Amino acid sequence: MWGFFSRRSNKEASGNPEKLPSELRRDVVTGDWVVIARARSKRPSDFVTEKAPRKEKKDPFANPQASGNAPSLLRYEDERGEWTVQVIPNKYPAFTQHGECRIPREEGPFSLIDGRGYHEVLITRDDKRDFSRMEAHEAAAAVRALHARFNELAQDGCVRYISLFQNHGAEAGASVAHPHCQIMALPVVPTEVRRDVGGSRRYWERTGRRVHEDIIAWEREQGTRILFENEHFLALCPFVPRTAFEIRIFPKEQQASFAQLKQEQYEALGDALRASLAMLDGVLQDPAYNFFIHSAPLNDGREYDYYRWHVEIMPKTAIWAGFELGTGIEICSIEPERAAEFLRAQLPTWAS
Amino acid sequence: MWGFFSRRSNKEASGNPEKLPSELRRDVVTGDWVVIARARSKRPSDFVTEKAPRKEKKDPFANPQASGNAPSLLRYEDERGEWTVQVIPNKYPAFTQHGECRIPREEGPFSLIDGRGYHEVLITRDDKRDFSRMEAHEAAAAVRALHARFNELAQDGCVRYISLFQNHGAEAGASVAHPHCQIMALPVVPTEVRRDVGGSRRYWERTGRRVHEDIIAWEREQGTRILFENEHFLALCPFVPRTAFEIRIFPKEQQASFAQLKQEQYEALGDALRASLAMLDGVLQDPAYNFFIHSAPLNDGREYDYYRWHVEIMPKTAIWAGFELGTGIEICSIEPERAAEFLRAQLPTWAS
Repeated sequence: MWGFFSRRSNKEASGNPEKLPSELRRDVVTGDWVVIARARSKRPSDFVTEKAPRKEKKDPFANPQASGNAPSLLRYEDERGEWTVQVIPNKYPAFTQHGECRIPREEGPFSLIDGRGYHEVLITRDDKRDFSRMEAHEAAAAVRALHARFNELAQDGCVRYISLFQNHGAEAGASVAHPHCQIMALPVVPTEVRRDVGGSRRYWERTGRRVHEDIIAWEREQGTRILFENEHFLALCPFVPRTAFEIRIFPKEQQASFAQLKQEQYEALGDALRASLAMLDGVLQDPAYNFFIHSAPLNDGREYDYYRWHVEIMPKTAIWAGFELGTGIEICSIEPERAAEFLRAQLPTWAS
Repeated sequence: MWGFFSRRSNKEASGNPEKLPSELRRDVVTGDWVVIARARSKRPSDFVTEKAPRKEKKDPFANPQASGNAPSLLRYEDERGEWTVQVIPNKYPAFTQHGECRIPREEGPFSLIDGRGYHEVLITRDDKRDFSRMEAHEAAAAVRALHARFNELAQDGCVRYISLFQNHGAEAGASVAHPHCQIMALPVVPTEVRRDVGGSRRYWERTGRRVHEDIIAWEREQGTRILFENEHFLALCPFVPRTAFEIRIFPKEQQASFAQLKQEQYEALGDALRASLAMLDGVLQDPAYNFFIHSAPLNDGREYDYYRWHVEIMPKTAIWAGFELGTGIEICSIEPERAAEFLRAQLPTWAS
């Protein structure tokens, strides 16, 4: 689930991970948090990359409960009573719910906190079709389920952030081919979110304006990087992409948190995801990709009105190697203006 | 060279990249820089991941000049006059040297700067043996060459940072199997370095002590994560690793910049690299890995005496997927204390 290179399943490798809650450790120098999954039964051989292609296993999400998964936390059905979307607890969770809120404690110069939280999987029924090939109502149902789980988990006052994401394709860390999203609720605010929100706050303090509003206005003026627009959402290639063919989707009205998404916007967000992923698919021919939602921190009594939640879609067009890891500077090998030209040429007819 | 998933060579794809200087763009929200390699002749098909294994090509580094590379910038020879180490300009540079220092300019809400700098490749003679299998004198010669190039490029007052790194194995972004390091000199200070140095400064301001000194003292007390030590260097598994089996190497004396490395320390650093990579190789069986050096920024008149340069070795034990990309929180699936046990058991006999 977490995207090991190792081809052994986490199940074989880690015994019963529920008994071993994870731990978040914070680097004293960078301030970054890292999850230490305390799987004591792991052997080094679990980390050895097998060079042979992965064997196709039985789809564990075709019938999740028959494959040993817990009952669903949420389930939508069609008129025949067949499930269409369900959310289940992740079988190998990086965070587990147990007891009261934790506070960070010191260990030498470092801090750490128990990995108290939630880790869930959202499964859409069809084992092949991801958002790029879904019908409008199917994508809207997936969005509705993400929003429902987000809002329910946000009720737990210990939760400081909820990460929503999808990994598609083995190169992007998907260990199960059946399309699924993941929902992870954490007791800390991640560095990337802190940086995003902090930068937006500083822009607000400096200019009195919202940075995402200014970016969207400027992108509209320029026009060269805009890909798709409907009543509620705008999809574009960002001026500063972290990977070739990256796409971001922004709500057109001010919403700091994904919690603020409205019911009447589910289909529009689903359409923006469908159009964006269909364009990527057209240009890159079934690429591996990750997408995730960035949203304001939770349960700290703040408004974050200078911030705007959004989706970032990152196709796996490059490996981040020594330069990228060491500097944080990604090398994007195509200008986003040119990437947008190629992508727009693949806009599906329903979206034109 | 930069680690594309695409199996097409940059040469085919990008025509004559020297004519197209790259551009660094800075995100207004996060402050991150990204390199836009302006390879206008690229087609989307250059980004399509081929599923078939890569064909073995003729080793372009067996005889670099016969393979169309420029004359070497530095070359060490053995007593027979055969080269043992050479540094050449990268054939497909991410940064090129041209004219005067640039200053960032505005474009809408963003900033950008020309990719003025240097991009070089350090090649050790043997086409198979990386640091893990080198003799002491070979590793010392490679360190000497890295240091010589670092110090020469640092003389260019426009250079604000030099990134030294190695990519080993296709999964870690190495496009050539022959062991080689890369040297990239940039006109800006990368985010990761800024964060590292900033955190060290804040620790200094808060405590009056150097953070790396405190970390090393605490690690010595604990003992559980230390892997190897010689007169000048200490190798350990960091308490907060970014990847399973990560290793860091620190100089034992205070040195803010790699420039301060001393001639009499070349062999000791080479030994620390040899021992660390041999342990990794023993545990993970020829893993793909990246290593890089973090060092203080250059040419700004500051001392950075609260910072210490070091090496970070990151084996490719996981894919950073949607959660890691979206949050910056990596999931490390083995405790570093336990990883250190496995690694120490593989300490080569020469190092025991």
